[in-house]
Amino acid sequence: MINRLCIIGVGLIGGSVARAARAKELCHEIVGVDADADNLRSALEWGVIDVGFSDVAKGAANADMVMIATPVGSFDVIFNALKAIWPTEAVVTDAGSTKCSVIESAKRVFGEVPDNFVPGHPIAGAEKSGVGASTVDLFQGKRVILTPLETTSPSAVKRVERLWQSMGAKVYQMEPAHHDEVLAATSHLPHVLAFALTNMLGKKDEQQEIFQFAAGGFRDFTRIASSDPKMWLDICLANRREILPLIHQFREELAVAASLIEKGATDQLFALFVDARGARQRFLDQLEK
Amino acid sequence: MINRLCIIGVGLIGGSVARAARAKELCHEIVGVDADADNLRSALEWGVIDVGFSDVAKGAANADMVMIATPVGSFDVIFNALKAIWPTEAVVTDAGSTKCSVIESAKRVFGEVPDNFVPGHPIAGAEKSGVGASTVDLFQGKRVILTPLETTSPSAVKRVERLWQSMGAKVYQMEPAHHDEVLAATSHLPHVLAFALTNMLGKKDEQQEIFQFAAGGFRDFTRIASSDPKMWLDICLANRREILPLIHQFREELAVAASLIEKGATDQLFALFVDARGARQRFLDQLEK
Repeated sequence: MINRLCIIGVGLIGGSVARAARAKELCHEIVGVDADADNLRSALEWGVIDVGFSDVAKGAANADMVMIATPVGSFDVIFNALKAIWPTEAVVTDAGSTKCSVIESAKRVFGEVPDNFVPGHPIAGAEKSGVGASTVDLFQGKRVILTPLETTSPSAVKRVERLWQSMGAKVYQMEPAHHDEVLAATSHLPHVLAFALTNMLGKKDEQQEIFQFAAGGFRDFTRIASSDPKMWLDICLANRREILPLIHQFREELAVAASLIEKGATDQLFALFVDARGARQRFLDQLEK
Repeated sequence: MINRLCIIGVGLIGGSVARAARAKELCHEIVGVDADADNLRSALEWGVIDVGFSDVAKGAANADMVMIATPVGSFDVIFNALKAIWPTEAVVTDAGSTKCSVIESAKRVFGEVPDNFVPGHPIAGAEKSGVGASTVDLFQGKRVILTPLETTSPSAVKRVERLWQSMGAKVYQMEPAHHDEVLAATSHLPHVLAFALTNMLGKKDEQQEIFQFAAGGFRDFTRIASSDPKMWLDICLANRREILPLIHQFREELAVAASLIEKGATDQLFALFVDARGARQRFLDQLEK
């Protein structure tokens, strides 16, 4: 049982952790920290958190579990704010979308990554943001990746693992660099594509109202383009090492597809579409497992 | 009231036209034509159609409304099969995804487009195909675009318009070339991107199981990559004039995004994401109208 759970960033993820922790009776008290006063007020009013602070150090004081759930660009500031009161008896973890950047940030601030800090990332989300988008069952059946270092305390890892499992998630461990490589492909690249396409077509729409004739396929394809711009700015910059080569590889894939279309290479184009459909079925089969 | 409705291609679209026409009592009899014997048998067994033929000319004989709902690559063959028995008293229309190619096909076969042929396209679909995927309400609240020519009989247009309206759709008219331009942007390009991405990541997944850590965002982004490969092969070839420049334009958009990420151009990247989110909201607002 956690006594005092401190959540830094009470948005979609942080708010959902709070709601689930409360519903599953995983802690006695939930302290929320948020730089956005309106968001913090809503979290308090709706009973998502018990106490609210704008100050990171005040919020984290006396917590035995601290979860950092902000966009990854804020970690330097947050680690610096935590440094003075770093709770060596507590467990600190995070829900940041990239893992190497978070670990590098901890190294910058602390010299080395504290052994009670467990880097983590729940593979769950939505295109909506803020505490208003949080739900009690966001992590139910979802995957969470922890990327502990060799120096990370095994008991701290165990406590974070149990926390996520208690909220219904399946917990995996992998190397931070591997996490960033996999997520760049399955999440970061699709987001960049969705943002770029929606932006390009938005400009066309201003000229000739094409959106009027877009339908359900377009709605689903572009759903992730409604995601929080700040969060995605941070991810793109934090994981650019993995994302950039994938963008260029995808540009090459498109060049190949365009060339097949131009040449009317029926068999190869058909094979490409069949392979894509097969690959997606493999993905769906895994998703349901 | 239609006496004998002939649907050529009893798949997702054709089957849904049959189901809706029956439910709304728009016709006395529904004749289905399909080259796929299994699909035709299912359509008969499930009562989606009353009579089934594999032969286009036999199926269309004595029909007063003929709807061609096959992939657009089949139109030459179908028009040729209809030529001998071309029903001048009937109205012939289609549900093909591209309109210039269908009109060019009619010109190739008939010399000029028959005045009782009304080119059309319902903006409705799903990633599933075949009569098993058809539903009675697929067109409810959806948009249908008709692209009649100057020589098209206004009364034929009127009858097709009424047919779609009776199935719950909103009917618009536009130039065939404009249809193809708009749909290339809102539908064809996203499909090419989804196929290309799923194909590329499918190859990566074979090497290191990345799909295991893909989630809801990826599921929705790639949904259209499960679409019928034959239908999309035909669309890509039929509308390559419009699709190819868009693929290349999108590759340039990606190059710009990559360059912003590489340079760490925070403000511009943030503005791109904000603009994209705003554009998608504009689209959503229209979709709900």
